[in-house]
Amino acid sequence: MAAVASSSSFYPNQTPTFLSPHPTVSHLFGISYSSSHKSSPGRLQLKVAATAKLVMDQKTQPSSLPTTVDVHLGDRSYPIYIGSGLLDQPHLLQRHVHGKRVLVVTNTKVAPLYLDKVIHALTVGNPNVSVESVILPDGEQYKNMETLMKVYDKAIESRLDRRCTFVALGGGVIGDMCGYAAASFLRGVNFIQIPTTVMAQVDSSVGGKTGVNHRLGKNLIGAFYQPQSVLIDTDTLNTLPERELASGFAEVIKYGLIRDAEFFAWQERNMDALMARDANALAYAIKRSCENKAEVVSLDEKESGLRATLNLGHTFGHAIETGCGYGEWLHGEAVAAGTVMAVDMSYRLGWIDKSVVERANKILKQAKLPTCPPENVTVDMFKSVMAVDKKVADGLLRLILLKGPLGSCVFTGDYDRKALDETLHAFCKS
Amino acid sequence: MAAVASSSSFYPNQTPTFLSPHPTVSHLFGISYSSSHKSSPGRLQLKVAATAKLVMDQKTQPSSLPTTVDVHLGDRSYPIYIGSGLLDQPHLLQRHVHGKRVLVVTNTKVAPLYLDKVIHALTVGNPNVSVESVILPDGEQYKNMETLMKVYDKAIESRLDRRCTFVALGGGVIGDMCGYAAASFLRGVNFIQIPTTVMAQVDSSVGGKTGVNHRLGKNLIGAFYQPQSVLIDTDTLNTLPERELASGFAEVIKYGLIRDAEFFAWQERNMDALMARDANALAYAIKRSCENKAEVVSLDEKESGLRATLNLGHTFGHAIETGCGYGEWLHGEAVAAGTVMAVDMSYRLGWIDKSVVERANKILKQAKLPTCPPENVTVDMFKSVMAVDKKVADGLLRLILLKGPLGSCVFTGDYDRKALDETLHAFCKS
Ligand SMILES: NC(=O)c1ccc[n+]([C@@H]2O[C@H](COP(=O)([O-])OP(=O)(O)OC[C@H]3O[C@@H](n4cnc5c(N)ncnc54)[C@H](O)[C@@H]3O)[C@@H](O)[C@H]2O)c1
Ligand SMILES: NC(=O)c1ccc[n+]([C@@H]2O[C@H](COP(=O)([O-])OP(=O)(O)OC[C@H]3O[C@@H](n4cnc5c(N)ncnc54)[C@H](O)[C@@H]3O)[C@@H](O)[C@H]2O)c1
Ligand SMILES: [Zn+2]
Ligand SMILES: [Zn+2]
Repeated sequence: MAAVASSSSFYPNQTPTFLSPHPTVSHLFGISYSSSHKSSPGRLQLKVAATAKLVMDQKTQPSSLPTTVDVHLGDRSYPIYIGSGLLDQPHLLQRHVHGKRVLVVTNTKVAPLYLDKVIHALTVGNPNVSVESVILPDGEQYKNMETLMKVYDKAIESRLDRRCTFVALGGGVIGDMCGYAAASFLRGVNFIQIPTTVMAQVDSSVGGKTGVNHRLGKNLIGAFYQPQSVLIDTDTLNTLPERELASGFAEVIKYGLIRDAEFFAWQERNMDALMARDANALAYAIKRSCENKAEVVSLDEKESGLRATLNLGHTFGHAIETGCGYGEWLHGEAVAAGTVMAVDMSYRLGWIDKSVVERANKILKQAKLPTCPPENVTVDMFKSVMAVDKKVADGLLRLILLKGPLGSCVFTGDYDRKALDETLHAFCKS
Repeated sequence: MAAVASSSSFYPNQTPTFLSPHPTVSHLFGISYSSSHKSSPGRLQLKVAATAKLVMDQKTQPSSLPTTVDVHLGDRSYPIYIGSGLLDQPHLLQRHVHGKRVLVVTNTKVAPLYLDKVIHALTVGNPNVSVESVILPDGEQYKNMETLMKVYDKAIESRLDRRCTFVALGGGVIGDMCGYAAASFLRGVNFIQIPTTVMAQVDSSVGGKTGVNHRLGKNLIGAFYQPQSVLIDTDTLNTLPERELASGFAEVIKYGLIRDAEFFAWQERNMDALMARDANALAYAIKRSCENKAEVVSLDEKESGLRATLNLGHTFGHAIETGCGYGEWLHGEAVAAGTVMAVDMSYRLGWIDKSVVERANKILKQAKLPTCPPENVTVDMFKSVMAVDKKVADGLLRLILLKGPLGSCVFTGDYDRKALDETLHAFCKS
């Protein structure tokens, strides 16, 4: 019990009132990252070391106390639960279901893996709740209005009313689509995110951006719409293909680069563990990522400025995704190459040291992520896609660029156009 | 000037800082309705009488000081400008345009009548602003996702960015679609309503409900999204077909029945003037309707209760609209028949006097509106459409019913099912 008590100060965001039937401390893990925590690293190191043995002893416990990260948004605040075995803790889900009707939105890849488990978690000991599900085709190329209509169709045919709850079960594509369906069905119903990819767990499920693609660009149609809660069962990552795993790390690396140098340094030391799916390393990376994202979103929900910094590498990346046709490159892969381009441009502007360029390249390579766009993407393709970027304001393209020591960035349209041109030409054959 | 000064107290919501280049008082009109105003009718009658002559004298003035009704919604508050010739006062529009790019959404019927005028109002003396327009097919049957895609297409092809402004120019169909497009394009851009039907001017343009129909039901996909402003130029009603005019009066009558007995009494005295398009009577009915709607919306934006009362007759009405296939009956016509049914049911429940039933029927007939559903709509059709009504919560159909003296209503699921059945059978052949 001493270990659990000390964990409370280690995880300041943890919901103290929640008590698991199996209160283990498996969410307190290895010491390799402890020094990266911002507050009193020395003290923390001690605590984590003290609990490490306990973790080993209790590894057989089926479920664990979740770590909770809170997203502070006034009356739209919500918790993110992070941990192993959370899908085996039905109350975590059930406490956030409104009404008696649930629609689970998932896809052909994820349904066979986790749909039964989620339906069980929603209904066990809760006979009043009835669950429908809609299984969408899998892939970014289906993240469009046509596929979205299948969700509305199912909801309406099932006669769901305003007091129903939509549950997104899957990666970022499902999360974004289900979230937008929830935002727009009957002008808004409750919804819960169960992200099952690294990408969705560290980024897309948090912060309320929802939407679908248009044939002329990504995420051009959507809404800001916050979930009731986000449930991250890290066990779901065990079935994730390697490329998808790495794709998610592009966003994790992003948080380090734009605002959390200590986290970046932790990643440099632990990227091999992350690639090897070390459970503790994964859980920590997810928690720390969610904390970073939650903080940014709390400060700037509707992206009037600060939140845009989460798009490091994304303007270049979206051009790559659009240029390849959605589905060729993964989102995180495109972001990785885009990040290298943004970092390159920052360096050309004289805003960062060579060492930052090198560290960014190195960690992305360690994560087996691409560090340049595919050959078929041309300068003109970049330029034309960038012109419809949402961050263009009155014709001026603003970019997220690094400036200063690692962990600092700016969101600005005030840069030398020459540097952008040079970067595009340096990374494109034509 | 004395007349203008006294008008300020007559129109407490008027924006005092606005000064028209032609400050006439043509928004102060006839005395027939004055006694219906809630505060000190005696004093008002005097004032209005005093200004009436002035109105006559200045009838040749091209534009007039608008009446302003404010919708109070914190940082999303906005003004509704009401008056004759407002489209000839460019600053009324221009002050609410954000950014330099505007997309006017209108339809094939309205574009030839008013598009040039609106483009002129947006651009005159304002060379920085560029205006695109998209002209949709006309009719409720086009209020769907497919038509909406044309708006997104145009916006994206025109490379509009987040700081653009969408302008809805048309009736409720255009307003609902343009509003929803504005809500969802790039997760939300500015938008202005220029309603051109009675229906849109007294109801749909105010309050932020936007959306499109699904083949299985009306307005099932949408968003709550408030405009920057609503500009009501009453002159646009001069081109409106008679049936459309009357259709809008169904909503005007609704405000009287559910919450404003004095306004209802005014309508009883002035329905002939309204039907004859008396400009003063129309402007007053619009203003009073907007005030009623604005008050309700301010108290309950997201329709957790009170706002639902604005749907008197709409649950029955939606069933009629869906039963006929959209486009056969006008929205207001369906609402009129639905209102009679709701009033009938209220009477069967013993909640209202026979006199209320009679007055409701009489005024609707005066407005040449239907007082029963079309013959082909059956009890089963009502029941099946009512089952997907948005006001069903956990399977219980809640209805807006009159209860007590005229001007009072309830929104409740607590009624004798027999009364509903009896009403359905009384109004349907099968
Ligand atoms: N809303 C936001 O703030 C935000 C942020 C970042 C990314 N996104 C969006 O997220 C999307 C990318 O998300 P993604 O990378 O998760 O892609 P994805 O949803 O396509 O998932 C990747 C693949 O993994 C499969 N999968 C999911 N979970 C699995 C599991 N547990 N085991 C095995 N396979 C599994 C999926 O079916 C898919 O084939 C993009 O559309 C992007 O625009 C949104
Ligand atoms: N959002 C809300 O709160 C709300 C409230 C009430 C109704 N509505 C919606 O509004 C719609 C009905 O609105 P409506 O009755 O305005 O229908 P509408 O928009 O179809 O307009 C009626 C007809 O009049 C034409 N028209 C418009 N302005 C004209 C003018 N000045 N001169 C000549 N013709 C003109 C239109 O092109 C159309 O043919 C429905 O879809 C209904 O669901 C929404
Ligand atoms: Zn991303
Ligand atoms: Zn209506």
